[in-house]
Amino acid sequence: MNTCSPIGIGLAGFGTVGSGVWNTLLRNGELITGRTGGQIALQIAKILVRDPAKVRATTSEVPPAMFTTDWRSLVADPAVNIVVELIGGTSDAFDIVAAALRAKKPVVTGNKALLAQRGVELFAISKEFQTPIHFEAAVAGGIPIIRSVQDSFVGNRILSFSGIINGTSNFILGRMSEAGLTFEAALAEAQAKGYAEADPTLDVNGWDAAHKAILLATLAYGFPIDVAAVHVSGIEQVRPADIAFANSLGYVIKLLAVIREHPDRAVEIRIQPSFIAKSNILASVHGVFNAVAVHGDAVGESLFYGRGAGQDPTASSVVADLVEAARSLASLGCHRGFLPYCSAGRLVPVGDTSTAYYVRFDVTDRPGVIAEIARVLADHRIGISGTHSPVNPANPDAEFVDMIFLLHTCPFGKLQQALTHIETLDCVNSTPVVFRIEALT
Amino acid sequence: MNTCSPIGIGLAGFGTVGSGVWNTLLRNGELITGRTGGQIALQIAKILVRDPAKVRATTSEVPPAMFTTDWRSLVADPAVNIVVELIGGTSDAFDIVAAALRAKKPVVTGNKALLAQRGVELFAISKEFQTPIHFEAAVAGGIPIIRSVQDSFVGNRILSFSGIINGTSNFILGRMSEAGLTFEAALAEAQAKGYAEADPTLDVNGWDAAHKAILLATLAYGFPIDVAAVHVSGIEQVRPADIAFANSLGYVIKLLAVIREHPDRAVEIRIQPSFIAKSNILASVHGVFNAVAVHGDAVGESLFYGRGAGQDPTASSVVADLVEAARSLASLGCHRGFLPYCSAGRLVPVGDTSTAYYVRFDVTDRPGVIAEIARVLADHRIGISGTHSPVNPANPDAEFVDMIFLLHTCPFGKLQQALTHIETLDCVNSTPVVFRIEALT
Repeated sequence: MNTCSPIGIGLAGFGTVGSGVWNTLLRNGELITGRTGGQIALQIAKILVRDPAKVRATTSEVPPAMFTTDWRSLVADPAVNIVVELIGGTSDAFDIVAAALRAKKPVVTGNKALLAQRGVELFAISKEFQTPIHFEAAVAGGIPIIRSVQDSFVGNRILSFSGIINGTSNFILGRMSEAGLTFEAALAEAQAKGYAEADPTLDVNGWDAAHKAILLATLAYGFPIDVAAVHVSGIEQVRPADIAFANSLGYVIKLLAVIREHPDRAVEIRIQPSFIAKSNILASVHGVFNAVAVHGDAVGESLFYGRGAGQDPTASSVVADLVEAARSLASLGCHRGFLPYCSAGRLVPVGDTSTAYYVRFDVTDRPGVIAEIARVLADHRIGISGTHSPVNPANPDAEFVDMIFLLHTCPFGKLQQALTHIETLDCVNSTPVVFRIEALT
Repeated sequence: MNTCSPIGIGLAGFGTVGSGVWNTLLRNGELITGRTGGQIALQIAKILVRDPAKVRATTSEVPPAMFTTDWRSLVADPAVNIVVELIGGTSDAFDIVAAALRAKKPVVTGNKALLAQRGVELFAISKEFQTPIHFEAAVAGGIPIIRSVQDSFVGNRILSFSGIINGTSNFILGRMSEAGLTFEAALAEAQAKGYAEADPTLDVNGWDAAHKAILLATLAYGFPIDVAAVHVSGIEQVRPADIAFANSLGYVIKLLAVIREHPDRAVEIRIQPSFIAKSNILASVHGVFNAVAVHGDAVGESLFYGRGAGQDPTASSVVADLVEAARSLASLGCHRGFLPYCSAGRLVPVGDTSTAYYVRFDVTDRPGVIAEIARVLADHRIGISGTHSPVNPANPDAEFVDMIFLLHTCPFGKLQQALTHIETLDCVNSTPVVFRIEALT
């Protein structure tokens, strides 16, 4: 169990996500091996491309011998243990995935259209050849919603999903809302920023979200879903006036995918622009972010939020699936319960951690108090961004009052030194209370 | 591969969470077996209790022969394949977990104090006996944060966590904020509602959150963390005036667990009341809910949100770990890539799905328009909650205007019939635009 198994990867497709997988394995390959107890090393063995001469935006050079333009040779290559399908579409991609499964090589794919439209065929081949298809990257980019539904919520009857699962639409609706842009102007902006493709049809007409919703529903309810029977409408008809009116009523408009269990094994699936209350956490999902709210009968309400697309987030999901496929190939089972203490590390002393601060002093109110405290802070070179003393209307001339200081970012140890000094001042009556002011991203 | 393996479970502890596991397996056992391709049936075989005569709040009666008061007989019972430790504390619980691992029986536990304080010893035993400890239930109840960090983000260097991981504190701070209650009054309310224990010390002093943060940091950074060196402060010193002042500056106060990677393999861990901007999604985490924001170098910002405690959410995580442990025991590997089409099911026709609606009509503005449309809606027995026509200030007497109707909940098919009729009216110039108004929980 302690020898490392190098696992060869065949990448079919080397665009944005494929390059992201290359970069991620280059950057974090050793970390991944450490986390698997030194037992797995993922190595890209072969890459299918249309044009081997094309310049690639990877962080290291790809050896030209790695490229092939023939998918059959990639799948058949004995150095390829797992096939990653990233070429998109439902035709060649289908052939590659089917051939890999038949060769008993596990498949990792992010191709939601392929699985939504031809999943029934592919999952039958997967079962026949006892070889898995992993597809975390197919739904909501870096958000681990597939694994959470399959594994973490395996004990739950899933009552519903409500998802914002198309970042392009969400960005467009957001810009229409913030800046009063028309749909057309917001779409143009999304294209300029690279958030919408040259042909944005599937993003704005709801079908990209529909493919993802179909996969989620298939996982949760375990029956094949007829794509043509799903009700889908897109955001093309949303106008700034609709958004403004929704806003006046306490709503935002989001492209929402709704999946809901009905009695007698029936399931509702629909994708359309929807009014949702501003107080709902989904209303706080801005820009190109995605979120999926899941309601399980045991877990209750839960929500997964993150980047639903993009090179690195999608690569994150592909790599997670690669590790899972590799664990199976290396017969490691699911024993992630061993905590691999894989590295030396140390705790940062709290004195060396920095934030801004809110400090409340209990002081005797007399002229000079602020000056005295400020003097000590200045001596310790700690900047003040504001001071405030709440006045008690019932007793505006109280002798003992709270004096609040807002302080610039500094190491906590430096603050502690200053406070130790300040505590010795006559005007300060007890140990100051400190709360952190966090600069969260 | 197609025979079902009954897996026997020994439950050590039968309080809130233990009863939840019983109920969940009773309710969803068949579903779970179906989802594992008919290959796993989880069966509770033995239950460790202090008092077998005590009345239990389970949804079915527990056969008295299942109870034992001797943990050694539970661990040794040949019918027990997996041991679930739910008794709490760090003494007997340690002995039970260690004995189970030595007997090569996988352990599932939700005991964060045990793992934070004595994890180094237990994980060494786990490794020695090649038997896993699963502990999803130890951090944030039903939220699958452990599995997401271990598996889904395995390809990521974790840059930081920011978590609201103590629901009791979050409830108390929320009530202080909403209702201006003192800490003491809000704590009493939490106790009355069952959100705080009779001895709430570990919840309000930050140590419950600290234990969880220590587990998260251990997973992400792979080295044992000295519990005594972690900086922890609780919410006891927060006053309504602090919250009001924070609010005036655009902040909320939350008990925040922060874990952050520094250079040279150093890690910052601290738990304290913190100001966070109202615009941050963590500020929207209310009541007893938990949330963990994770920043990975590939996945970017992501967030997991849900119920961080309680009978059923915690049981959801225990059951997920049981299935994972059972898959390993049954040598099923991690082949969750086969989609088990385990059930018959059908799609609900969209005409049978119901919400409220926003409908925008393009009408010729003349007296009687609202009456005509309202008449048709009434004929179809669809209720109107409001109508509105946005006036264009530049052209208040425009001939063609938008007329918006807000409609009560009805089946979409009924609305479609009414709209088909309305489209034939002279005053209506094009196909009406319909958006849903969702009643999300």
